[in-house]
Amino acid sequence: MVPHLLPALMGPVSELEQRFLDSMPAIERWFRLEWMEHTPLVYSSVTLRNSGFKLAPVSTNLYPSEWSQLAPEMSPLAVQAAMTAIQKICPEAKNLLIIVANKIADSNYLDSLSQLQQLFQRAGLHVRIGSIDGQLKEKNNLTVSSGESLLIEPVIREKGRIGLKDFDPCTILLNNNLIAGIPGILEDLHQQYLLPPLHGASNFRRKSNYSNCYEMVTKRMGKVLAVDPWLFTPMHETCGKLFMQEPNDMLYLKEKVNALLAKIKRKYKEYGIKEKPFVVVKADNSSACSSMAIVRDANDLQTFYFGFKEAELSGADIHPAVEILVQEGILTKEQISDSVAEPVVYMMDRYVVGGFYRIHPSMGIDDDLKAPGSSYIPISSEKESEMAQKEVEFGARRPNRFYMYGVVARLAMLASSYELEATDPDAEEYY
Amino acid sequence: MVPHLLPALMGPVSELEQRFLDSMPAIERWFRLEWMEHTPLVYSSVTLRNSGFKLAPVSTNLYPSEWSQLAPEMSPLAVQAAMTAIQKICPEAKNLLIIVANKIADSNYLDSLSQLQQLFQRAGLHVRIGSIDGQLKEKNNLTVSSGESLLIEPVIREKGRIGLKDFDPCTILLNNNLIAGIPGILEDLHQQYLLPPLHGASNFRRKSNYSNCYEMVTKRMGKVLAVDPWLFTPMHETCGKLFMQEPNDMLYLKEKVNALLAKIKRKYKEYGIKEKPFVVVKADNSSACSSMAIVRDANDLQTFYFGFKEAELSGADIHPAVEILVQEGILTKEQISDSVAEPVVYMMDRYVVGGFYRIHPSMGIDDDLKAPGSSYIPISSEKESEMAQKEVEFGARRPNRFYMYGVVARLAMLASSYELEATDPDAEEYY
Repeated sequence: MVPHLLPALMGPVSELEQRFLDSMPAIERWFRLEWMEHTPLVYSSVTLRNSGFKLAPVSTNLYPSEWSQLAPEMSPLAVQAAMTAIQKICPEAKNLLIIVANKIADSNYLDSLSQLQQLFQRAGLHVRIGSIDGQLKEKNNLTVSSGESLLIEPVIREKGRIGLKDFDPCTILLNNNLIAGIPGILEDLHQQYLLPPLHGASNFRRKSNYSNCYEMVTKRMGKVLAVDPWLFTPMHETCGKLFMQEPNDMLYLKEKVNALLAKIKRKYKEYGIKEKPFVVVKADNSSACSSMAIVRDANDLQTFYFGFKEAELSGADIHPAVEILVQEGILTKEQISDSVAEPVVYMMDRYVVGGFYRIHPSMGIDDDLKAPGSSYIPISSEKESEMAQKEVEFGARRPNRFYMYGVVARLAMLASSYELEATDPDAEEYY
Repeated sequence: MVPHLLPALMGPVSELEQRFLDSMPAIERWFRLEWMEHTPLVYSSVTLRNSGFKLAPVSTNLYPSEWSQLAPEMSPLAVQAAMTAIQKICPEAKNLLIIVANKIADSNYLDSLSQLQQLFQRAGLHVRIGSIDGQLKEKNNLTVSSGESLLIEPVIREKGRIGLKDFDPCTILLNNNLIAGIPGILEDLHQQYLLPPLHGASNFRRKSNYSNCYEMVTKRMGKVLAVDPWLFTPMHETCGKLFMQEPNDMLYLKEKVNALLAKIKRKYKEYGIKEKPFVVVKADNSSACSSMAIVRDANDLQTFYFGFKEAELSGADIHPAVEILVQEGILTKEQISDSVAEPVVYMMDRYVVGGFYRIHPSMGIDDDLKAPGSSYIPISSEKESEMAQKEVEFGARRPNRFYMYGVVARLAMLASSYELEATDPDAEEYY
């Protein structure tokens, strides 16, 4: 499949994008100073939406699991970034243990794991893969798409350390969002580096904490760029715990939805945007409930209520009261071969190391594309450099069309880093 | 021109190369620990020679000037490494000044400068280019091969700082080896970062200091690999100051040459190598005299003497007494399209960021290829990844054929870093 280049990126540079490109030295300096005060995530991926008038992150993943979708020619970048990360975390490291998610039946996930293992091996570590799934009693030798084998071994705990049989790691990389809670085997590991930290696990995180941090970060970036930070920030409203069966709580939610829709309408009017605004209603804690509703009118909320109810009836572990977050919806205007596409940016430490477009042939411009049937087109610096070559022939210095994506993704990652600092249960407070 | 792949790299993995590949985690850990104690050069290039049985650096350049020869698809690696370097040296940096060599009539050099400027711009700095050539009184707007323009401005000094008109840099990158000595304008710049430091300039450096440091470094790497460090270390003999016109000094030099030839012969015998050994006789201080002689027999030395004498007669500024270094010669067995090729590795901070083969159609396997008429073939990770793809189809994990080159180049760079520490006139000594 020949990737058709994307309208959003092949079209003229928007005013917003031009602002990012022109402000590059100021942006990079700002990030450098941030990284003196804050610790970047060891790795992360950020899904973005580009609506043409606005570019914003729609999800920040602390356990990225699509490493095999990156263009192979980008992997030296990831290896170099991994080297930097190791140098910082534990220069004397010999062994790295990757703890997998409990979805090793998914062949895409195995390909991702194999790629992740190779990246850290090429960065100079012995890398082995362990599972904390109690079902796995013996080592499991699997085969990935490339034909290479992938060994997954049961994690064992001894004397306050975890490892594998004959393998004692100094650093442990979690590739498991621990959605079911923190298992005992990972608690109180004071002798080893566990990354990301346990309080980054799904059931600790609140989208509202993250969104508040993101707002704080983009407010400052807005000043650096001298533009309205709304152009890269989704607005949100937190509702606290609601009982969806309670008419009063439902009324309260409708008010919040209407309030946010009104705020978006005002912004659309300010910028002359003709689209119909929408919001996304979801649980603040994604491990409590994964359903979400796209709402253009408060009356649509009935559907959302049923969404929860069905989940409940099907036996899913849902609390009757759910913390609710209402978020500004961001359309995606990018398309590849008539399919809706959303860019995903991969980072290792503070560096953008690659990305891809997630595309879905049967999804609409406001749908969640991380769904069965989605496919991927890697973003490659090679194609970039071909484009560069072409334009350099005309004597013009070509802008990096992915630069704005990389900046917004790093803002999202920085917000998560603030979020983890703010929610760290072991944080020492200095007054 | 389609690059024919190189016999040395397309052939079977040698025992030595296999040892490097197998020891990767130990090698990388060793480097990580070194970089905790020592400061990598801000940038550097190392020319290597691969004789099939031996791989060794033949020159380490602290002012690399062939940046435009790197494959364009490798430039994100250099940008990322530059970001790491800036983060470490001066995170609050806004402005970087590159000081050029006084050879701005050389179009290859201008292309290199333009590329270097772009790399640091993409890393997030305002980058301008200055000249300390007293001849340049006005700014000079030049055009490079790509058609882009390149502005070179006269460097000015004010209140203990240097800069350009309306441009005050916090960091200054020297791309000028200051072969004629340190100009006053660069002395005592205590408020700005000057990289590499002034005592890295050509007329301060002694090849013997560097060679001693390289021997020290490779001795330790030999232990990591459990191989004889001679397999990646050229032997050398220092002779001190010699008057070439003095028969006694000439005799002394002949003795040194014969002694080193005998040592090489013993090594060749030990490893069953059938080649005829040779040594290279050159000035220890390359700024004193750039001639060198390839000597297979002490009788060839007469030629060398004349080499010096001619230089002297032609009016070059040569001291009658020259510090002499005798170095083991390394053949190059790598060929591209029937031309002799030598790999050149480019580094930024502690990272390998690319490289190329320098080839020369009319040079022999023991000649210096950095001569007029040489051409370049970039080493690209893209081709690497194509090779990878091909072999992965067979289910085999492909070794990185450039890994050994990257390690030896980093050893050479580390040796220079030791050398600069040892020769630092401002070093504080703690006892």
